[in-house]
Amino acid sequence: MSEPPRAAPDRPRLPWDPPDHFEKRIPDGDNRERLVCARCEFVHYQNPKIVAGAVCTWEDKILLAKRAIEPRKGFWTLPAGYMELGETTEQAAAREAREEACATIEIDRLLAMYSVARIGQVQIMYRARLISADVACGPESAEVALLRWAEIPWEQIAFPTVVWALAHFHESRGKSDFPTYGNPTGELARMWPPRKPLGV
Amino acid sequence: MSEPPRAAPDRPRLPWDPPDHFEKRIPDGDNRERLVCARCEFVHYQNPKIVAGAVCTWEDKILLAKRAIEPRKGFWTLPAGYMELGETTEQAAAREAREEACATIEIDRLLAMYSVARIGQVQIMYRARLISADVACGPESAEVALLRWAEIPWEQIAFPTVVWALAHFHESRGKSDFPTYGNPTGELARMWPPRKPLGV
Repeated sequence: MSEPPRAAPDRPRLPWDPPDHFEKRIPDGDNRERLVCARCEFVHYQNPKIVAGAVCTWEDKILLAKRAIEPRKGFWTLPAGYMELGETTEQAAAREAREEACATIEIDRLLAMYSVARIGQVQIMYRARLISADVACGPESAEVALLRWAEIPWEQIAFPTVVWALAHFHESRGKSDFPTYGNPTGELARMWPPRKPLGV
Repeated sequence: MSEPPRAAPDRPRLPWDPPDHFEKRIPDGDNRERLVCARCEFVHYQNPKIVAGAVCTWEDKILLAKRAIEPRKGFWTLPAGYMELGETTEQAAAREAREEACATIEIDRLLAMYSVARIGQVQIMYRARLISADVACGPESAEVALLRWAEIPWEQIAFPTVVWALAHFHESRGKSDFPTYGNPTGELARMWPPRKPLGV
């Protein structure tokens, strides 16, 4: 049984961490503990969140953004972020490219879906084309860049899933129909600290 | 911009509907309205929820369950439900098969991913094999059945996405590597009221 995430000593309090007056309890008709507000009985159902993003290309270059915010401020990432209500996964990926890199993209196809159970995330990554090379920093980015494969700063990548998505994108080059990549096994599963995977 | 879902006159109050003393407000550092508790300032971030499930087969038969609960009580569905924290998408699909049909399954591969933006869901459906034909009702099912294709009660199917997943499963028969199916277009997109899609 999973524990709902709370602010741990090793990380800052996140905006969606529940207040301390929320208690663990099994609500009527449920079969597992949830956090319930001790003052008003509101049941705070917590489920995994979807992160949607894309590997966006312009000719032979890939769009990366340097994070201007924590976590991993100063490290490079693919445009991606929490999906919002009312969106499709494709719309969420396109919105994140617009918000983080002022980029307009055209989704090509679903590239990968990764479960990151430890942090309650499912990451859904598309392959996409930039409509123009006109990109710029959004409020969460300190720098944006269109980089050739050989120029990717592997050791400055923000998250292991970004290394996975880049490696899977590389493997998918030239393919139009391919099964969606999932959580890697073998060497690619162990990309922390981040580095260039073997054979890509 | 999407509105957070609240109990509407045409549907019963759901356990995760926020109480009336939650107000719409844009929290510091955010760029859209969220529901905030007027008493304790807790920000109730709402994001799409993941429904994970599977088309589970035993020989040439497909596992369906008749719903014992609302919504769509008495109608037939594939084992599927809300993903919980601490799980992978595959584990969630396997747990739902166990909870709803006492079934043990082996995931084959990712079949489909559907965005249902109107209700804030992303549905992730696998193709899976039953380990044995030994299935039985869980607390949310009134009946479980292993049905041949010709026996599927199309007009008694609970949700359009169940029709989509069955049609996509049928199209994927005999294929081992195929791109993940997404939201359908054309006739299959209009499966309400539910019926047998043309050509399957």
